[in-house]
Amino acid sequence: MTTHPFDQAIALEHSDLRAGQFAGATSPDYWNMVGPFGGTTAAVILQAVLRHPDLLGAPVALTVNYAAALAPGAFEVLAVPVCTNRSTQHWTVQISQPGAEGRPQVNTTATVLTAVRRDTWGESDLPMPAVPPPAEVERFAIGPAGVAWLDQYEMRPVSGTVPARWDGRLAHSESRLWLRDARPRALDFASLAAMSDLFYPRVWLRRATRVPAGTVSITTYFHADAALLAEVGTGYLLGRAVGQQFRNGFFDQAAQLWSEGGALLATSNQIVYYKE
Amino acid sequence: MTTHPFDQAIALEHSDLRAGQFAGATSPDYWNMVGPFGGTTAAVILQAVLRHPDLLGAPVALTVNYAAALAPGAFEVLAVPVCTNRSTQHWTVQISQPGAEGRPQVNTTATVLTAVRRDTWGESDLPMPAVPPPAEVERFAIGPAGVAWLDQYEMRPVSGTVPARWDGRLAHSESRLWLRDARPRALDFASLAAMSDLFYPRVWLRRATRVPAGTVSITTYFHADAALLAEVGTGYLLGRAVGQQFRNGFFDQAAQLWSEGGALLATSNQIVYYKE
Repeated sequence: MTTHPFDQAIALEHSDLRAGQFAGATSPDYWNMVGPFGGTTAAVILQAVLRHPDLLGAPVALTVNYAAALAPGAFEVLAVPVCTNRSTQHWTVQISQPGAEGRPQVNTTATVLTAVRRDTWGESDLPMPAVPPPAEVERFAIGPAGVAWLDQYEMRPVSGTVPARWDGRLAHSESRLWLRDARPRALDFASLAAMSDLFYPRVWLRRATRVPAGTVSITTYFHADAALLAEVGTGYLLGRAVGQQFRNGFFDQAAQLWSEGGALLATSNQIVYYKE
Repeated sequence: MTTHPFDQAIALEHSDLRAGQFAGATSPDYWNMVGPFGGTTAAVILQAVLRHPDLLGAPVALTVNYAAALAPGAFEVLAVPVCTNRSTQHWTVQISQPGAEGRPQVNTTATVLTAVRRDTWGESDLPMPAVPPPAEVERFAIGPAGVAWLDQYEMRPVSGTVPARWDGRLAHSESRLWLRDARPRALDFASLAAMSDLFYPRVWLRRATRVPAGTVSITTYFHADAALLAEVGTGYLLGRAVGQQFRNGFFDQAAQLWSEGGALLATSNQIVYYKE
């Protein structure tokens, strides 16, 4: 384990109890407002699968459901390979913490698909938008009111920055930004999973109104393999997020992450609760 | 229960064993090539949650992982409300059939989010594309080689029809079509879940090459509530599906379903295995 704060945040100890049971702890470095940054929780889920002795292949799909906020401190992760075929493997994963009377209470459910990938024909129907290079885009300055996890990322917003004035003026819901770990760290599946959840709630941008909002479920598809991740290394990713439908307390947002070279590394969708 | 083939396909009997355990059977009316149409499997998952005595609210998100093909015949569904909050409820669901030595073998895993929805501000950032009305679009004729489930839907493709010639010519990956149950049935959450999986693999359209392909995981977000569904009734939906990234054996496709009046009812994403 390195001393990088992200590696510390997703560090897991094998439990003696059974294969697939791990112990971890929330990280103050990635704290959000009422719980950990959801991206690190998604990364923890994935990390449990990646560390399981029966793992087949590499991540293809990840769905994480944030059922309840994690409390600061220790948690347990249970990763189960429910069904293993010749080249694909289906996992269910959950995170729990002690609840009433010390009984374990599940706060996060998830499913993961891993697969052995083979060379095939390939093409992208989602080309990277034309944007100025990272060096020409100013870094987003985190104010003193910023929450901890924001300090862990270098973000260079091209468009769709957090509204400067919460004046309720209706706008579009699309953001484009360059991003990477603030402290350099080579991209891997866990950090790609976390970065897929990096975009602030689209409802804030759309309405220029800061209503309570929180991700309830996120699904990320991994298009990159280990070789492509290695090529990216500590480079920038271009992230794009856009709202789709806002209705009666929930909206969905779609997100994409490209390498600076224009390879689509991951596509992600999430459904977000909002108030008012 | 009505005699509509879709109601028969998703019919579930409560098991005596425990709350949340149901028995069902695959339907020949919705048979695909090597298993049931994935849309009916998704609908069965949702139906188990909707029939659970502890249900809170209505469906918001559904992720279904097709781990192995269902064999023709009986299956069991287990729906567990893992975490219930004031207004949201998180479910894990699985389908199993007898495997080796009669032991139950899970072939489908899923998570479902239900919620009590409240009136809020709302808006759509995914307006319905401009297309001719259903009456002006010819109905897709199912040939004799058609698989059973296709007969259960009335489809009127506006663009992106299944290639007439498999000549390997590269094209776009977008389809738009009007669709509804061939035999009229009022839209509900279960049929909306099924219709979200109605689109044939984008890789066929993109490459005009009929390679083996199959959905591995689908996530659908429900934007409609019961009132909006009732408004649609037996009317047409406009469906749109588009491929995103094709790479090393997997691609993802995004789909949307609007009412004829232009209300976005559901957004859906899936990751699909393909060969070659």
